[in-house]
Amino acid sequence: MSAASPLSSVRIVLVQPQHPGNIGAAARAMFTMGLEQLVLVKPRQFPDIEATRRAVGAERVLESARVVDDLAEALKDCHWSVASSARPRHLGDEPLPPAAAAEQLLHASTAGQVALVFGAERTGLSNEEIELCQAQTLVPTNPEYGSLNLAAAVQIYAWELRKAAVAPPQFSLKKDHPWYLPATHEQLELFFEHLERVALATGFLDPANPRLLMRRLRQLFNRARPDRNELNLLRGLLTTVETPKRRGPRPPPPSDSA
Amino acid sequence: MSAASPLSSVRIVLVQPQHPGNIGAAARAMFTMGLEQLVLVKPRQFPDIEATRRAVGAERVLESARVVDDLAEALKDCHWSVASSARPRHLGDEPLPPAAAAEQLLHASTAGQVALVFGAERTGLSNEEIELCQAQTLVPTNPEYGSLNLAAAVQIYAWELRKAAVAPPQFSLKKDHPWYLPATHEQLELFFEHLERVALATGFLDPANPRLLMRRLRQLFNRARPDRNELNLLRGLLTTVETPKRRGPRPPPPSDSA
Repeated sequence: MSAASPLSSVRIVLVQPQHPGNIGAAARAMFTMGLEQLVLVKPRQFPDIEATRRAVGAERVLESARVVDDLAEALKDCHWSVASSARPRHLGDEPLPPAAAAEQLLHASTAGQVALVFGAERTGLSNEEIELCQAQTLVPTNPEYGSLNLAAAVQIYAWELRKAAVAPPQFSLKKDHPWYLPATHEQLELFFEHLERVALATGFLDPANPRLLMRRLRQLFNRARPDRNELNLLRGLLTTVETPKRRGPRPPPPSDSA
Repeated sequence: MSAASPLSSVRIVLVQPQHPGNIGAAARAMFTMGLEQLVLVKPRQFPDIEATRRAVGAERVLESARVVDDLAEALKDCHWSVASSARPRHLGDEPLPPAAAAEQLLHASTAGQVALVFGAERTGLSNEEIELCQAQTLVPTNPEYGSLNLAAAVQIYAWELRKAAVAPPQFSLKKDHPWYLPATHEQLELFFEHLERVALATGFLDPANPRLLMRRLRQLFNRARPDRNELNLLRGLLTTVETPKRRGPRPPPPSDSA
């Protein structure tokens, strides 16, 4: 995959994969479709002979795979990420179908790193992990039998990503598009921390009974996909809530007010 | 899958599969997408413990699988079949892309049995086998690495078949979807007025030099399309900025604090 390929900014993140064979099969599935960035969050066993055996020629993807301790670390420099999960979402948007997730990932990838995240074989992603991502996706399966193998799920998404990458793009990024200066995952998390501090300070958030307030606010802001300038704007507003800025004639301005 | 499903007339034929694990994984891939008819032409080893192990819950597909001696036998009662093969075709049409093959299979299945045929892991289908089929299909892969696993190829086609079978879209607005109670224009405007009042009060917004701050905040929130509950949440936060709500033991609570 050349550096210019739209797929080169898409990483696949496997959270706590339990079977090394699935890691190898996922690497093979990725590489057949031109994806090369694999990140493993706390794999049970890696490197492993079974992973290498199942990769069959895609060892290069395994060799360059990054192993990290948690999902936040895997997403740190990403500005958009999608969680693959069948977990019902009581709050928030409907999960994206795979083709739509692929299109949006590629669209966002023109501005920086993006990630598609898969959970462990039996347990999937936790709610907390899903909430670290900006969107959720789901492969709609046979209602009688939905047990999609991890590598098979990666294959479906890798295929949809390749189709979307090879098809002429329907969207173009304009300079004034919100993703032009995308916010990184870390910047977004710092904003959420700031928002929570303010919500606690004003008494909006009751630490003894936080309910789902922060989760709902996260979903709202994740849906808007704020860019860096917008995050700066929001954080500026939060800062003035914490420390009001005096304007106009009311109090005498300090001498260095310019 | 009920008998009425358009997928019930589609069979998957594996010609001389060499690895029992791939037979099991193919059965699982099929069943997740609602395909149940598996025909095996001279499998090297079947039934097999590894096939059963990899089927994980899709044993029913393995149990009802038919084993036959040659491809002609597998296709005997079919009236349309597609060969999956990367073998260049010197004569005849271009191979169909997977989605088109899936559509044509389903279309043909309304009149009777149809088949999608895969060759052995390393060698694929022979020219003679391809010629027994009415069309050819190919998964376009990474030009650098095209080694698609047999079960992964079955997964891609099974997925395309399911999409074609369930279209129109499976995704609809649920009652708990955030847009189910969409905010009215008026509610949104009241929120923006509230936001502006707070921004003026904290000094974030300078009435003498408002710049584009409110316009940019409007764009951000409009992009998120908040529903009524989310607007109430945001307005609740703004209200506590205007009039902090005391929590916890710090100040003595007023008598009507319930």
